[in-house]
Amino acid sequence: MKIRKIQGGITAAKGFSAACCEAAIKYRNRKDMAMVFADAPCAVAGTFTSNKVKAAPVLWDMDIVKNGKDARAVVVNTGIANAGTGEAGMTLCRETAAHTAGVLGIPVDSVLLGSTGVIGPNLPLDRMNAGITAMAKTLSKSAEAGTDASIAIMTTDTVNKETAVEFELPAVSEEGTVTVRLGGMSKGSGMIHPNMCTMLAYLSTDCAIDRTLLQKALSTVVVDTFNMISVDGDTSTNDTLLLLSSGQAANKPILEEDESYAIFCEALFTVCRELAIRMAGDGEGATHMIEAHVIHADTKENARTLARSVVASSLVKAMIYGRDANCGRVLCALGYAGPDFDPAVITIDLVGEKDTLNFYKDGCVQVFDEDKALALLSEHDIRFLCDMNMGEEEAAAWGCDLTYDYVKINGDYRT
Amino acid sequence: MKIRKIQGGITAAKGFSAACCEAAIKYRNRKDMAMVFADAPCAVAGTFTSNKVKAAPVLWDMDIVKNGKDARAVVVNTGIANAGTGEAGMTLCRETAAHTAGVLGIPVDSVLLGSTGVIGPNLPLDRMNAGITAMAKTLSKSAEAGTDASIAIMTTDTVNKETAVEFELPAVSEEGTVTVRLGGMSKGSGMIHPNMCTMLAYLSTDCAIDRTLLQKALSTVVVDTFNMISVDGDTSTNDTLLLLSSGQAANKPILEEDESYAIFCEALFTVCRELAIRMAGDGEGATHMIEAHVIHADTKENARTLARSVVASSLVKAMIYGRDANCGRVLCALGYAGPDFDPAVITIDLVGEKDTLNFYKDGCVQVFDEDKALALLSEHDIRFLCDMNMGEEEAAAWGCDLTYDYVKINGDYRT
Repeated sequence: MKIRKIQGGITAAKGFSAACCEAAIKYRNRKDMAMVFADAPCAVAGTFTSNKVKAAPVLWDMDIVKNGKDARAVVVNTGIANAGTGEAGMTLCRETAAHTAGVLGIPVDSVLLGSTGVIGPNLPLDRMNAGITAMAKTLSKSAEAGTDASIAIMTTDTVNKETAVEFELPAVSEEGTVTVRLGGMSKGSGMIHPNMCTMLAYLSTDCAIDRTLLQKALSTVVVDTFNMISVDGDTSTNDTLLLLSSGQAANKPILEEDESYAIFCEALFTVCRELAIRMAGDGEGATHMIEAHVIHADTKENARTLARSVVASSLVKAMIYGRDANCGRVLCALGYAGPDFDPAVITIDLVGEKDTLNFYKDGCVQVFDEDKALALLSEHDIRFLCDMNMGEEEAAAWGCDLTYDYVKINGDYRT
Repeated sequence: MKIRKIQGGITAAKGFSAACCEAAIKYRNRKDMAMVFADAPCAVAGTFTSNKVKAAPVLWDMDIVKNGKDARAVVVNTGIANAGTGEAGMTLCRETAAHTAGVLGIPVDSVLLGSTGVIGPNLPLDRMNAGITAMAKTLSKSAEAGTDASIAIMTTDTVNKETAVEFELPAVSEEGTVTVRLGGMSKGSGMIHPNMCTMLAYLSTDCAIDRTLLQKALSTVVVDTFNMISVDGDTSTNDTLLLLSSGQAANKPILEEDESYAIFCEALFTVCRELAIRMAGDGEGATHMIEAHVIHADTKENARTLARSVVASSLVKAMIYGRDANCGRVLCALGYAGPDFDPAVITIDLVGEKDTLNFYKDGCVQVFDEDKALALLSEHDIRFLCDMNMGEEEAAAWGCDLTYDYVKINGDYRT
C-alpha cells in the first residue's frame, strides 16, 4: 500500500501549525475562528466557487493564487460569509490580512482568508482582529491544534472533518526515500453542490513540488472528489479549497509528471475523497450517506453527470430518509441527467455491506423482497450501482438524504 | 380584453365530453381514471418529457402525435405510472387503446393514453378495461364532467386544476366573428421540473387551426409556462401535454401566422400559464407559491435560466417555508445559475401585494425592516423581482416552498 492513512489533519505535514479561538463573530460559546501558519513560504494551489457572486475572501484568495504568491497563513471565520458585502467586504479582507501580517511578521499578500456563514452582514473587524491576535499566540504543531481548528470552522456540520496520509518519495539526497505527509480539514453541511467547489477545505503537505504541478494535481483531483458531492444543489458563494506545500519533507522535488507526481496525486485523491465523502454524509439534517456509482458509461463526463443526478435528486433523497424502496426514482434521475442511454440495457443494484439487491434490468423495475430492501436501506451508507452497459468509463458521486431537519435548519438559519 | 376567462375546463370547447370512474388501480374510494372524448376527429399537438426513460404511454402518444394522426379520445389513470415496465408496458398500452377503440367505435390509433403514479409496477389490464367501459357510458359535455375528470387525475395534488378562456375570431362565413374556446386540466405535485415537461395536462379547443400551427403554438407557449415551473428539480418519466382541436367553433381556419394565430397563442399562453402557476403553488407539501421574475437580462434564455435557478433552490425554498428573510440565498441562486452578470449592478426586490422590499443593490445585501420582511413572507404568493440591468429580456419562473410535508410525502410514497 503506497498511501498510508495516519492520524491528524492540517498539522500532520512538517512546517504547519494551527490555532483557534472564540471570537464571537456570530455564534456564542464556541470556537469560531481558525488560523493555519506555515514556518516558511509555501507554494499554494487553489480552486474556487464557480458562482458568479463570489464572496470577498474568495476574490482575495483567487488573486493571491493566480499571481503565484507564496502563502504563510490562512485565517478562517464562521458565522458570517462576507458575501454580498461589496466594497466594504473587500476592505475588511485587506484590513484583516494586514492585521494578520503585522502580528505574524509576514507579507500581507501571503495571508489567505476564508469565511462561511450568512450572506449579507458585514464582519466585525474589531472582533476579527482580536481573534487573530489571540490565535497568533497559541499556534501549535500538535495534532490537537489541527483537530481544534477543524472544529472551529464548522457551521451546521455535526462532526469535524480531518484526515491525513503519508507516503514515500525519493530523497533529495538521492539516498533512499523520505516520508512525505499530506493532510487537511474541511467543513460542509448546507449550500453544498461544489462546482469549484459553502465548503471550505484546507490542505497542507510537506512535499517539495513545483507550484504549477501542485495546482495541476489539485485541479485534476477536485473533479472526481469535491465536485462529485451534493447536499442540496446550491453552489455557494464561498467555496474554497486551498493546498499549501512547505517542501520540508526533504524529498527530491517533483518537477515533472513522473512516478513521484503520480504517487502525490494518489495521496491527494485519497485525502480529498475522504473529506468529500464525509461532507456528503454530514449534509444538513442528514441521516444517510448516498453513493451513486456509475460503471460502463460511454464517457467519463457522462458517468459523472449520471452519478451526480442520482445523488442530487430530491425524490431519491426523500425516499432514502423514509427507507422506502421506491427505486424507480433512481432510474428517473438517470433519465433526466442529460446523457443518452438505452433504458432497456442498463441495470441498477442497491449494494449493502453484505447483500445486493437488483431492482432494475431488462427495461423493467424488478419485483424484490421488501424486507431485504428495508434491511439495505437501514444501513447508514446507501450505495447504488448503475451499470450503463455502454463503455468502460466510471464515476462515483456522494450525497445525503433529505430530512425534516434539513427543512428545519434552513427555514430558520439566521437566528 | 381580447382573452376572457370563463368557467370550465376540458369540456369548455365545443365537441368535447368527459367522464371518470373509480377503477381501483391503486387508490381506493376515489376516482382514479378519466376519459376525454371528441365527437369528431381532432388535430392534436403534444410535448413530452425529455427524460431518456419515457413511460410506455408517453411513447404511445408520441407516436400518434409525430405521425399526425387524428385524435378521438384520451384515457388517463393515476396510481401507477406504467414506467420502467418495458415491453409489458407497451403491450398494456396497445390493449387498453384497443379496448377503448372497441367501446367507443373509433380507430385504435386515435386513442391517447396518460399514466401517473409509482414507477415500476404493471397496470392491471382488467381493472383498466372495466373502467374504460364504465366511463364510455357516462360521457358528458357538462362543466361538472370536466371538473370531475380534473379531480380524477390528481395524485398528491391537494386541489384540482382546470381553467378555460374564450376569444373572438373571424367567422368561416366571413360575416363577423365567432366565439372560440380553449380550456384544459392538469395535475402536478411531485417529480415536477418539466423539461418537456409527472405533470399531465390536457387541453381542448374548438378553434379550427392547421395541425402544424397547432403544434407550433403549443411548443412555443410551453417554454414560458410549463417549462418554467419546478417543485423539486426531478423531471418525470411521464410528463405529457396534449392539445386537441375540434374545429367546431366555425371560425375561419387559421392557416398562417396571422392576427388570428397571435390571438390563439395569447389564449393558449393564458391557459397554460394559469395551469402551470397552480401546479407550482400546489407542489407536494407546499404552503407558498414562489415566483422569480427576472427583468433586463441580456438574452431571453439567460432570463429563463436565472429565474428557474431561484425557484429551484432548496435553500430559497426552505427559507420561504420558515419565513426567514435570508435573502442572500436568492443572490446565490442567481450566481450559480450559469449566465454571466455583474453582481455590483443588479437589484433584487421582494414584491408583495401592497409593499415592496429592496434587499440587494450596489453589490450589497441591504439592511431591511425585519417586520416588513416577515409580513411579505407571510403572503401566500412570494415574488422576487431580479433586475439584471443588462438588456431588455425578461422571464418568470414559478415554484413552491420546501416543507416537512414534502419530505413526509416522499419518504413514504408507495404505501
